[in-house]
Amino acid sequence: MSAFPLPPGSVIGILGGGQLGRMLAQAAARLGFDVAVLEREHDAPAGRVAAHAIEGAYDDPAALKSLADVSDVVTFEFENVPAASVAKLAELGAQVAPGPRALAVAQDRFEEKTFLNANGAPTVAFAPADSPEAAVEAVARIGAPALMKTRREGYDGKGQRWVEHASDAARAFAELGGRPVIVEAPAEFVRELSVIAARGRDGATAVYPLAENHHEHGILRRSLAPAHASPALTEQAERIARRILQGLDYVGVIGIELFELKDGRLLVNEIAPRVHNTGHWTQDGCEVDQFEQHIRAVAGWPLGPTAATARVEMLNLLGDEVDGWKRFAAEPETRIHLYGKRDAKPGRKMGHVNKVKPL
Amino acid sequence: MSAFPLPPGSVIGILGGGQLGRMLAQAAARLGFDVAVLEREHDAPAGRVAAHAIEGAYDDPAALKSLADVSDVVTFEFENVPAASVAKLAELGAQVAPGPRALAVAQDRFEEKTFLNANGAPTVAFAPADSPEAAVEAVARIGAPALMKTRREGYDGKGQRWVEHASDAARAFAELGGRPVIVEAPAEFVRELSVIAARGRDGATAVYPLAENHHEHGILRRSLAPAHASPALTEQAERIARRILQGLDYVGVIGIELFELKDGRLLVNEIAPRVHNTGHWTQDGCEVDQFEQHIRAVAGWPLGPTAATARVEMLNLLGDEVDGWKRFAAEPETRIHLYGKRDAKPGRKMGHVNKVKPL
Repeated sequence: MSAFPLPPGSVIGILGGGQLGRMLAQAAARLGFDVAVLEREHDAPAGRVAAHAIEGAYDDPAALKSLADVSDVVTFEFENVPAASVAKLAELGAQVAPGPRALAVAQDRFEEKTFLNANGAPTVAFAPADSPEAAVEAVARIGAPALMKTRREGYDGKGQRWVEHASDAARAFAELGGRPVIVEAPAEFVRELSVIAARGRDGATAVYPLAENHHEHGILRRSLAPAHASPALTEQAERIARRILQGLDYVGVIGIELFELKDGRLLVNEIAPRVHNTGHWTQDGCEVDQFEQHIRAVAGWPLGPTAATARVEMLNLLGDEVDGWKRFAAEPETRIHLYGKRDAKPGRKMGHVNKVKPL
Repeated sequence: MSAFPLPPGSVIGILGGGQLGRMLAQAAARLGFDVAVLEREHDAPAGRVAAHAIEGAYDDPAALKSLADVSDVVTFEFENVPAASVAKLAELGAQVAPGPRALAVAQDRFEEKTFLNANGAPTVAFAPADSPEAAVEAVARIGAPALMKTRREGYDGKGQRWVEHASDAARAFAELGGRPVIVEAPAEFVRELSVIAARGRDGATAVYPLAENHHEHGILRRSLAPAHASPALTEQAERIARRILQGLDYVGVIGIELFELKDGRLLVNEIAPRVHNTGHWTQDGCEVDQFEQHIRAVAGWPLGPTAATARVEMLNLLGDEVDGWKRFAAEPETRIHLYGKRDAKPGRKMGHVNKVKPL
């Protein structure tokens, strides 16, 4: 068993070889750690900046053993880590952070909203359904129009359907594959916000300023941070974040997506038990960014400061938008973060830029 | 031949696997480049954060060929790259930046000072000597006490002797190995300063604010930046930097060590054709740090902004001072940069911290 805080020279294991793993790996190296990445594909973005790249499926026992053997702590870049893999890592003696409870909650939209409401983090009204009949009943109870989502998986707007009338509920249920779903009341929000927060092994918490987020076709396009927000709104977001962190006995960085309602209340849309796209602004707008913060937390180090040092507009570069690198490179206010992905498929997150202004 | 600017996905080759190579590799990856490192030792700091680690001597033809084959441009982290290696790389079709002229000038203290004076960058008085008799004569000409240094190699105060009287010159010459030397008049400086500057492939130049440096036993302990400096002093430093960059037809980042005299004049102590320890403050005090700036320059990208965004005290962590990581991690104003070196030998540069304050 590793003793925390982990000294420099220890190995941080990361499940997942994408851009979040890559930026975590870079932050870890800056603090003097070595990094081991378990990635499904050869030549993935994270493995190319890590001391150890292990190739294998996320539920491959041999790959998990290689990762556990070399790592002093194991973390992940995505929330859909199979529960069995986490159990396997624990069985192999690996310290995994965040823990299985955070994953279980974040992997199931019904569990998630149930947890949130039980911990003083309000959400829209919701009801689960696991049959066409139950789906009809759930929509009738929540009221149409309603949003039907698969309980598990689904991201960037995938795995969900609008149901305009209760009579459409059975068809929507079938279209979503006949899998267990959750029916949600629509949120009549005025803005989408998010808050990135962290909790250390000592139970200390740290919350970054709010970001205002704009999506297109379910994919994040841009974040503005710190978002214009009243002290009351900020205080509300911080309170929600701390309740969630404590309720999950969390270790690491968490991303919390919020809806701001007309009356100033915040509802939690969803939580992601990992570093988050809406927190990329912290790389150029805070002294300690979300990636270093996550590494500090899982390594048992004290959390770093979260105050903004600049105002940032973060733009995701999707697909061939990355070809704009030449223009971005010529803009003095623009900081460039590219992920080294080989193939600029449409809609694929290839990089992001942070446009920085003084506070 | 590579076409500049190099697009993301190109490979930056780096000769040298130490901390400067490591931080260059990290900056390159952030811009979407892959990195290949040629390092003499297995498991060196830079190779552990690079896509390709090639092991071999810096003059090993096979290793140089591996590096040239994979790289779109080759740069280096230290100035004592054998001239024959650079010639070999060029013969293999590799683009090397900075070029051989900068290396030739920086590798020989006599060539260096001759170049500087010829390009309007003043230095102390100096004279070369390649025999005991010539050494005596040189000290007589410059006046004792004088500093005798080997023309080639020597760093961090190694390879030099104070000569108190002309009659001691022959002994000092022998103690320095009987190799060609340069005899320098002492600089009666009030401060040691340095300036980090860059020149792009398009000839554009960019100069960072001055840093004030404090050495102990010939090794840099701390830098304060931006140094308190009058506009006239800043203007003088910038003029010197631009003359050197243009005189060398330079591409990349250069470190220029300066003496500030009582009368406000600046003399150049030495130049390093690479990123420089006294520029580490830019990582947390500027939007584009010296490492990204160097990658931008050698890749043919436009240079980034160099204005300071914070006031920084940079402290080198030598030997077991790196064991203070726990204390540094708990200081909100302290940004930590550790190099992943396995063995904390006395005096070895293991990392640095930047203590950051608002401007």
